[in-house]
Amino acid sequence: MRMYDLIYTKKTGGKLSPEQIAFWVEGAARGTVPDEQSAALLMAICWHGMDVEETLALTLGMRDSGDKVNLSSIPGVKVDKHSTGGVGDKTTLILGPIVASCGIPCAMFSGRGLGHTGGTVDKYAAIPGLKVELTQDEFRRSLRDTGFANSAQTGDITPADRKLYSLRDVTATVESIPLITASIMSKKLAGGSDALVLDVKCGGGAFMKTLDDARTLAKSMVAVGQAHGMKIKALITRMEEPLGRAIGNAMEVIESVEILKGMHADSDLARMSFRLAAEMLILGGAAKDLATAEALVADSIASGRAMETYRTWVAANGGNPKALDDFSLLPGSAHSVDILSEASGYIHALDSRSLGIKAMEMGGGRSSKDDILDLGIGIEVHANVGDKVEKGMKILTLHHNGKTGNPLPADWIDIRPTPLPKAPWLLETI
Amino acid sequence: MRMYDLIYTKKTGGKLSPEQIAFWVEGAARGTVPDEQSAALLMAICWHGMDVEETLALTLGMRDSGDKVNLSSIPGVKVDKHSTGGVGDKTTLILGPIVASCGIPCAMFSGRGLGHTGGTVDKYAAIPGLKVELTQDEFRRSLRDTGFANSAQTGDITPADRKLYSLRDVTATVESIPLITASIMSKKLAGGSDALVLDVKCGGGAFMKTLDDARTLAKSMVAVGQAHGMKIKALITRMEEPLGRAIGNAMEVIESVEILKGMHADSDLARMSFRLAAEMLILGGAAKDLATAEALVADSIASGRAMETYRTWVAANGGNPKALDDFSLLPGSAHSVDILSEASGYIHALDSRSLGIKAMEMGGGRSSKDDILDLGIGIEVHANVGDKVEKGMKILTLHHNGKTGNPLPADWIDIRPTPLPKAPWLLETI
Repeated sequence: MRMYDLIYTKKTGGKLSPEQIAFWVEGAARGTVPDEQSAALLMAICWHGMDVEETLALTLGMRDSGDKVNLSSIPGVKVDKHSTGGVGDKTTLILGPIVASCGIPCAMFSGRGLGHTGGTVDKYAAIPGLKVELTQDEFRRSLRDTGFANSAQTGDITPADRKLYSLRDVTATVESIPLITASIMSKKLAGGSDALVLDVKCGGGAFMKTLDDARTLAKSMVAVGQAHGMKIKALITRMEEPLGRAIGNAMEVIESVEILKGMHADSDLARMSFRLAAEMLILGGAAKDLATAEALVADSIASGRAMETYRTWVAANGGNPKALDDFSLLPGSAHSVDILSEASGYIHALDSRSLGIKAMEMGGGRSSKDDILDLGIGIEVHANVGDKVEKGMKILTLHHNGKTGNPLPADWIDIRPTPLPKAPWLLETI
Repeated sequence: MRMYDLIYTKKTGGKLSPEQIAFWVEGAARGTVPDEQSAALLMAICWHGMDVEETLALTLGMRDSGDKVNLSSIPGVKVDKHSTGGVGDKTTLILGPIVASCGIPCAMFSGRGLGHTGGTVDKYAAIPGLKVELTQDEFRRSLRDTGFANSAQTGDITPADRKLYSLRDVTATVESIPLITASIMSKKLAGGSDALVLDVKCGGGAFMKTLDDARTLAKSMVAVGQAHGMKIKALITRMEEPLGRAIGNAMEVIESVEILKGMHADSDLARMSFRLAAEMLILGGAAKDLATAEALVADSIASGRAMETYRTWVAANGGNPKALDDFSLLPGSAHSVDILSEASGYIHALDSRSLGIKAMEMGGGRSSKDDILDLGIGIEVHANVGDKVEKGMKILTLHHNGKTGNPLPADWIDIRPTPLPKAPWLLETI
């Protein structure tokens, strides 16, 4: 088999066989396929795409390039969730305890943040003592004992994806539906779950800017998951303004606890978290339909079972569960600055990307992989899109420890005299 | 400037600035741009193409990456010819002496053969003593003293093209009109001529299989030449069967001499050589129109001036001019094998590619860059497309020195009972 033939086939719009794709992925990971040939093939894939069979072969090739998590010793349908990344998105912190408290094993591998979007691992790291990097044994023990496990990716997961991603990063080939699909799905399949709910973000604050693009990506991931026999469902959700009232690691833990204690129940964040949890319960077999699943979710909150699971899980993984009830035990900040409205009217836009970058500049996010985070800082969002504000009203409070970053760009907020009808958070389900 | 931005721009269908292209080409040649980024950009160029301005910038960047030949000390319009490569194509050997004998300086840099097509440099190397690799001074002296100069490329010509070509070769990005254009035109511009006639081959034996492709390439090269202020004309010629009666280096020298002595005057080879020479005379300013130019060509043959120039040129460059009149002084072969017709009828196809590969296998061509050639061997073509043959008649004679290569493929010849109207050798002029 020659890489030249693979590149030529894809360049001229042909289809690669599973054997050819496995040859490439193995060779790229081992270094026997030169980077220039991989780069040319990646661009040819951006050009002509890949069908489901090819994308599945790429996904499996990347999955099989490294360690795989074996959850077969845990009974039941293990469910996972993946989000394509948003600002203020702490849904994992909310739905994990809910799903586990309803008897469905919730097994999630999460990422660290990079750039303007945060990472679940960083948020959990704000809970004192909580271990966020588990071995496979620790992961299975947490899942067995508490119904929930969450860890930064463990061992040498999908090294071929890491290799190809670093090439894509310098060759402008990141934006390709099959390549994004295989990158996400290979990690999810390596994580060992049986079912997956996808939250595909769409809008100005997301990687997928248009509904068409988001739909294409969601369909591609669902098709690959199904072709592999996985139970899978995708929600396409709107990502323009930040999700919820807090951006910043400890502050997002607090918000997750508030919601699990029944607060902010009519917020988009609560609705989205509850819906994702309900979808996971359906895939896991705890409920036949959405109404039943949503009733289970509501009961887990109202009964306090979700919070109890949260505390048990934190304790089982070395963390201090008291921090979930006494927020003074979480990292904090010494200073705060209010950002006031410069006009009266209705907020038509609040750019989540600008706020994500601001939080990063304040020390709460990474501009490069090795940055050390200040988990206590964050941005409190007092008013969001659709809200009526008066000139001089607080829109944001920046909670910082000395670093305040660059001024927000001029267009971070758009206030107009006319009311704005509330846009739905859920755009489509696949 | 970042390579990422260039790749992204081209990937998304945008246009690169001359400065961006110069940055890339310089970086690729110097090694400061990594191969994977060049490979990705090359594939993106295959995808979205390049306009004339971009192609010219790439051409000039490659030209300026190495040595350039300065012919400004030679008076007159220096004319060159380029062929995209065919089997049995010895037109350069014929038209060089004609053009020079008509007073137009004919300055040509030629290549060595690789694969199934031969190279002019190898053909000339069959003339005993003839120097085929000249310094710039020797090249200018030959041009000044005899009106003609031909050499393998001298010095470090277009190293950026060499570097990018070696990348294209392994990344399936050779087939791209702007990349082919820039590769050819950069070498031609570095060669220092003021005018250029292009022979773009089209058909089963050529790189461009369809008239559409050949026309696109011809137009692209003409546009780039004109944008640079060069006088330029392209002929699209048919390349299915081998051109002329001989394939093999010394045998092609003999055929070129025969035509310059007035033989085979109604063959496609003679017509094509005379027409190319006439076009060069027009560009060089020796004639206003085709009829006048063709009359000059005819007179140079009939008067013996073309042959006299051939002899003078050979002598001036260290060769033995007697070999042009006594062919026993040229390399020869010890054995011959006739290939007979297996049917009676009319030849509908004679696959030039198969015959080119056969000649290569007999030792007359290179399968890899460092092969040493047997300049004496060759294939005599007794009957060509359109000819009527009887079963048992000689079609080919293989003249060899022990190596006969693999048997010809079953489809090397197609004989049918029906006559075939003669196809024109000239398909189009641009």
